Amino acid sequence: MDGTNTFREKYDEYVNIVNNALDDCVATDDKPGSEIFNAMKYSLAAGGKRLRPVLALAVCDMLGGSRNDVLPFACAIEMIHTYSLIHDDLPAMDNDDYRRGMPSNHRVFGEAMAILAGDALLNRAYEVMISHIMKKEGDLRSFVRAMDVIAAGSGAEGMIRGQTLDISYEGRELSGETLEYMHRCKTGALIRAAVLAGACIGGASEQGYEALAEYAENIGLAFQIKDDIMDVEGSLDRMGKTSGKDAVSGKNTYVSVHGLEKAVQLLDGSVSTAVEALGCFGEKAGFLRDLAFFIKERDN
Amino acid sequence: MDGTNTFREKYDEYVNIVNNALDDCVATDDKPGSEIFNAMKYSLAAGGKRLRPVLALAVCDMLGGSRNDVLPFACAIEMIHTYSLIHDDLPAMDNDDYRRGMPSNHRVFGEAMAILAGDALLNRAYEVMISHIMKKEGDLRSFVRAMDVIAAGSGAEGMIRGQTLDISYEGRELSGETLEYMHRCKTGALIRAAVLAGACIGGASEQGYEALAEYAENIGLAFQIKDDIMDVEGSLDRMGKTSGKDAVSGKNTYVSVHGLEKAVQLLDGSVSTAVEALGCFGEKAGFLRDLAFFIKERDN
Repeated sequence: MDGTNTFREKYDEYVNIVNNALDDCVATDDKPGSEIFNAMKYSLAAGGKRLRPVLALAVCDMLGGSRNDVLPFACAIEMIHTYSLIHDDLPAMDNDDYRRGMPSNHRVFGEAMAILAGDALLNRAYEVMISHIMKKEGDLRSFVRAMDVIAAGSGAEGMIRGQTLDISYEGRELSGETLEYMHRCKTGALIRAAVLAGACIGGASEQGYEALAEYAENIGLAFQIKDDIMDVEGSLDRMGKTSGKDAVSGKNTYVSVHGLEKAVQLLDGSVSTAVEALGCFGEKAGFLRDLAFFIKERDN
Repeated sequence: MDGTNTFREKYDEYVNIVNNALDDCVATDDKPGSEIFNAMKYSLAAGGKRLRPVLALAVCDMLGGSRNDVLPFACAIEMIHTYSLIHDDLPAMDNDDYRRGMPSNHRVFGEAMAILAGDALLNRAYEVMISHIMKKEGDLRSFVRAMDVIAAGSGAEGMIRGQTLDISYEGRELSGETLEYMHRCKTGALIRAAVLAGACIGGASEQGYEALAEYAENIGLAFQIKDDIMDVEGSLDRMGKTSGKDAVSGKNTYVSVHGLEKAVQLLDGSVSTAVEALGCFGEKAGFLRDLAFFIKERDN
């Protein structure tokens, strides 16, 4: 990749690679019942920042790993992220009619199909990873390890734990500690899995792996804090004031628990810590460093 | 295992092994949000016949494979089966208040938690398989292959395809051909995956693998036809008559499409074909042979 590329160009290049690969992950067929693929593709194609797969690709690139080998794992993570959004939007969960400016999955395909499309995307994530491993010769361990990291980050001790907490604590006050645990699970676990899957496929040293874990946890936190800040700034714009709890959703956020000023400090702190963690990689970590600042500066 | 054991004793022994292992698959912790494990355990412990994990264990046993190695895969299949029942019972799907004589998952834990518990069981199935593989030394290929078979049977070209068809065709007439395709996906794919996962871990020869695939497809069909016959006999008992379409659920069944007499013939035929397929295993296949007859004779 050309060293003179700006961060944004490089990011967009990764996104293009991911989008093309995702298209191939959910190929339809002409047998009865293939409409399930339409529902899966609808949400998968709806875009978003592709932050998680970009992270996996960028980490593997930095370590000199194979693009072809990391791509199925990057796509799997995005499929897992997408399924969680489909299920989160369901009437029984957050009851959101829109996602990324488009009608949510169940508004288009009905609730039953949306439940199945989410299930199918989660399962397909594993199908895609396993199929890739089945094609490899020689030692499969680093691939199985990448899958292990992704599975742990997605489950009842990772992302789903965070969703459980989100539901359990809705409308109740949350301590700063529990809030951080919730977000470490809900958003952080999958971001961490993306970085560490890239590290496994890229063949990171033990020291490099630990450094990347530190980086991942801190950009995960930064991502969530920034989200909360944007939410409250959005509602300030709309209403000219905000309450102690998030005024729009009634959910616990970094701003509702710590106040806006402290939340901005926490954001700055986690971005600094993330960038410091990359020290051992020197100049090769330029893109990941820029990405940490991008998470802080982004406006959507 | 003692050769003089009756079929039923051997079956129950397998069930005990599976139940104990399933308990360990969903161990709770004391961190916030651990209530997700209660919802997962509730449905997992609700029992049922454990047909799929018993099949995986029995096939691996017959081939002289390791009980310890097949068990995580057997449990994974039961977790996948269980998650599909939780999601099937949801109001947006079949809207069933009871499952196996107990209140369905969402009636106890609420819809949001039931959706998450299903997701978490599906993900945990992969976590359990992958964790086991990570512990193994040497060549991992046969384990990855077992997982590949399970993933394919569970997804949008397997079980979930069948659920999609079930929803799409509800209230519409179905050809015999499409009905068979639906059931090959909905029930057959996971039964097949159980048998073939046992075959992979047990180290089946290519010929043995093909024979077991033939066995699996035919007991899968037999299982579904018998279910449909029991349904219609149940409703005959209650109402003294039945209509062309299944009188209770409005769903397409073997009896509604072919009539009761033809359905019984199809059941007999598939059990015979299943038993014939086991010929190459000789006396070692006694349990699997008995199991095919058990599927035909069972009354629940």
